[in-house]
Amino acid sequence: MARVPAKADFPLEQVRRYLEPGPVVLLTSSWQGEQDVMTMGWHLVMEFTPALIGCVIARGNHSRELIERSGECAINLPTRELADTVARIGNSSGTEIDKFQAFGLTTEPGEKVAAPLIRECHAQFECKVHDRRLVKDYDFFVLEVVRARAAKTPRDPRTLHYQGEGRFMVAGDSISRRRLFDQGKL
Amino acid sequence: MARVPAKADFPLEQVRRYLEPGPVVLLTSSWQGEQDVMTMGWHLVMEFTPALIGCVIARGNHSRELIERSGECAINLPTRELADTVARIGNSSGTEIDKFQAFGLTTEPGEKVAAPLIRECHAQFECKVHDRRLVKDYDFFVLEVVRARAAKTPRDPRTLHYQGEGRFMVAGDSISRRRLFDQGKL
Repeated sequence: MARVPAKADFPLEQVRRYLEPGPVVLLTSSWQGEQDVMTMGWHLVMEFTPALIGCVIARGNHSRELIERSGECAINLPTRELADTVARIGNSSGTEIDKFQAFGLTTEPGEKVAAPLIRECHAQFECKVHDRRLVKDYDFFVLEVVRARAAKTPRDPRTLHYQGEGRFMVAGDSISRRRLFDQGKL
Repeated sequence: MARVPAKADFPLEQVRRYLEPGPVVLLTSSWQGEQDVMTMGWHLVMEFTPALIGCVIARGNHSRELIERSGECAINLPTRELADTVARIGNSSGTEIDKFQAFGLTTEPGEKVAAPLIRECHAQFECKVHDRRLVKDYDFFVLEVVRARAAKTPRDPRTLHYQGEGRFMVAGDSISRRRLFDQGKL
């Protein structure tokens, strides 16, 4: 079973620290007692305050229906030790199995949304659907993060970055170029 | 001076291979003889065919004006050896200096757009603005990639993934979980 890191809340305007590098995430949702989890690789940061995340949630995903109905979801950040689980979740359907149980994921309740949070993940972001204007044409949702939690260590989680063809780039070491930055542009 | 990798065109539906992992990119643009380059970390893949990329291009960037006027741009993919240049471009303004010259970047012409391509980058994506509906509220542009080129080696470029605070995660090694994937979901 995967490690379960102790987490603490952190300021919403710092969500970019985890999502801007582009990791694949596990998107959880819940509606009237039913819950689901899906993998998601198509997302971006859109604003610091409010903390906005844009993402593509394709039609046909069971999660898509739960998110459209509830107007809520949670973004969970998996790391390298969950690579098998991430691949398996992306290749199964929530209408057929309970993916949390099937893949040994522990859920815990959120504070601001009904969607379950995944304990084994490094960070968790509770979200409300903020704008649906591009849903019809592109399956594109704008989400507002309303609560953010992350493990305090390690500082730089070994996140997974999907490249297609079943391959994931694993986050390598970080380098600082802080000396080249204007204070206001950090 | 940075290495200049030999590049070849590749199918547009494979653009995700380079952009889905979430690297910081250099966005180039041109309008009536003027050209600019900016760093961009807020982007996502939105569709395979047409090859759509969504991105946030903030107001106040000189590039933003050139892109709005021309309806075109190019996404260039820098790697680790360009880390200093990426940081410097993100902390200077195209209204004050010619960033290509100031930072020693070599440009070459595109085939489908007037925006210059950066030779020192691993890959280059020529883009047309496809949808401006969310520009007013979120500075969010939907781009269509109309030509894609990449260096054939290395297979997995050491891209830069911005974490805020002047820090970049450098792409680590790739792992395959292909055996866990359904053929249709690769």
